[in-house]
Order: sequence, then C-alpha cells, then structure tokens
Amino acid sequence: MRATALPVLLQLQEKVGYPYTLISPDMYRWAAGGGGGWGTICGTVAAGACVINLAVPFGDIGKVVGELFGWYAETALPTKNHEAYAKFPNQVQSVATTPLCHASVSNWCAASGFKEGSKERLDRCAKLCGDVAAKTIELLNDYHSGKLAVVYNKVNPEAQSCFSCHVEGRNDTLTKMNCLPCHDNPHKK
Amino acid sequence: MRATALPVLLQLQEKVGYPYTLISPDMYRWAAGGGGGWGTICGTVAAGACVINLAVPFGDIGKVVGELFGWYAETALPTKNHEAYAKFPNQVQSVATTPLCHASVSNWCAASGFKEGSKERLDRCAKLCGDVAAKTIELLNDYHSGKLAVVYNKVNPEAQSCFSCHVEGRNDTLTKMNCLPCHDNPHKK
Repeated sequence: MRATALPVLLQLQEKVGYPYTLISPDMYRWAAGGGGGWGTICGTVAAGACVINLAVPFGDIGKVVGELFGWYAETALPTKNHEAYAKFPNQVQSVATTPLCHASVSNWCAASGFKEGSKERLDRCAKLCGDVAAKTIELLNDYHSGKLAVVYNKVNPEAQSCFSCHVEGRNDTLTKMNCLPCHDNPHKK
Repeated sequence: MRATALPVLLQLQEKVGYPYTLISPDMYRWAAGGGGGWGTICGTVAAGACVINLAVPFGDIGKVVGELFGWYAETALPTKNHEAYAKFPNQVQSVATTPLCHASVSNWCAASGFKEGSKERLDRCAKLCGDVAAKTIELLNDYHSGKLAVVYNKVNPEAQSCFSCHVEGRNDTLTKMNCLPCHDNPHKK
C-alpha cells in the first residue's frame, strides 16, 4: 500500500507542496495483504483511492476511484513496464476481475503456478504497486486537465442479467464488481 | 467512511493533540459505498483501519486491523446501541460474514427485506459507522493498555477444510475471509 501512495504523494509534494507536505506515506500501510492478511481490497488500489481522495473535490472522488478500480479489475497485470529493471522478468500476467486482493492473488497464482508465499508472488505484487501508482497519476492528470474518460462505470456484459435484477429491479445489493468470478450462477441449477 | 473516522480522530485530537490535529476527516471519504459504489471493503472498516494505522506501530497494524475486520464480519449489526436516538428503531440485524460492503449490504437487504436504495438501508449503514467507530476506539484503548485480545486471527470452522488446502497446502490464495458465503464448495459437485 505504502509503495503505491509514496510515489504519488512525492509528486504532489514536489509539484504542489502544502498541504501535501503534511502527509506521510506511512499513513498508508494498513491495506497490505488486503488489510491484516484478510485479502479484502488490494492495498495498491486502496492507496490510490486514498491519494485520489486528497487531490479531487469530494463530489468527484467516486468517479475517479471507480475508474481506478475498473481498470485494475479488467487489466492484465503486472504490466510489462518493469522489464528493464525486473529481478523476476517476464512474469505471467493475470486479470483480477475485481479490485479485491484475494481474487487478484488467487487468479495470479492459478495463472502462474507460483504459491502465494513465493518470492515471485511478492515481486508480482510489488510490480502492481508501481502499475497502480502510475495509473493513479494518469487519472489525476486526466481529471485536472478535464480529459478524464469514464470508461469503467458500466456493468461487465457477463453480469448484465445479474445486475438487471439485483441492482436495478429487486435492488438488493450494492456493487459494480462482476458477479460470476466469485459466485456460481444460482439460476442455472 | 468519514462518519467513522471523524469521532475517532476527534478523540485523538482532543486527548493527544499533535500530530492528529493535522489530519482532516475529509481525507477519509473515498470508501463510501465500498469505493465509488464498487462495494469492495466496507467504508466503516476502511476508515477504522486508516485511523488504526495512525495510532499503532507499523508492526502491529495488521493485528489490530484484523481484529476489527473479524469482529465486523461475525457480529450482528447494527448493534442495539442506537435505540435511544434512532430515527428507524429496532432495525433488523445481520451478519456480513466478510468485511466487504457488498456482502454486508446484500445480507442485510436479504434479512430485512429493504432495498439497497431505501432510507432504512442508509440508516442501517449510518448506524454501522457509529458501531465501527466505537469498536475502533475500544481496540485502540485495549492495544495501548496492553489488553488487546486476539480472537479473530483464526479460520472460521466452516472454512477449515478450504484453508487446509488453499492457504496452507497448495498455498494458492491470500485471505482470512470465510470462503463459503461467496463461493459454492466446488468439491461437493
């Protein structure tokens, strides 16, 4: 988490200064391992969201955070932008399908064959810290230059029929995550 | 999210002062609705974790955050502590089973029959802000008085067989959440 917050904060501190100079990156450590190893939200996107919160007016935080979450959920990660300095080059990429640590790590372990406790998995998550920091900076730049494209505020086509009922009709849940990577479709039984 | 962070921060600002006086509760708005309506981590526990991060040494953040997450996942919420001033008294309680907004809201909608977009659901989540703030303060007091009991750093018995293989043996995932409320057991097929 800290590794994602730090580079964004440093840019804000160097280019804007106060009040970002009051903020320590050590304030963003709790979501490592999805928070105490619970695997809830991925610490990289939690850090990105925390910093977006610092640099976007209240009414637009959700819009920018949603773009970060959607990009994270649907992008093959880690990117190839680390190859020039990578200790573990050419790592397998995987798609998390949600912004959750647990899903992200599980899908990467399944795709790569490496264990959660492996050095390769730690390296993969370190690369994601950089990838998400870069995306966060890109989104903040886009937002503040009036160029933010809202591309992820839509239902994954795979889950359209779920959302038609559970979000819109019965309205008995709250999410933008794709349902099917976690839940079997109960209606097929 | 802000509604959970604020009362804890105010206590830290009043009783400790600097550096907590530098922190604005408006830094903790991004996780409302689980972050841009995505329903990832519940904003109340995200706020609690953010504030725990400010008031506990790095090495122990995960331990205290884990207790907050575990308590949230397994406790019938909202508590009855709001009855004296409640606009919607005697609300149905439900158990989230995870620290995730999406699961928490879904389970409460199922238990209560109210829609996600209802005033009753908004009131229920407002009550959770207070419940989680109170629990966060309790955990911080326990930690700093050397009385923190680690009661939630264990596998839910229902998921013991999942964890024996997927966390310990194959070691292909990362979580402390109970598996079965979200995933059907694939081995029963």
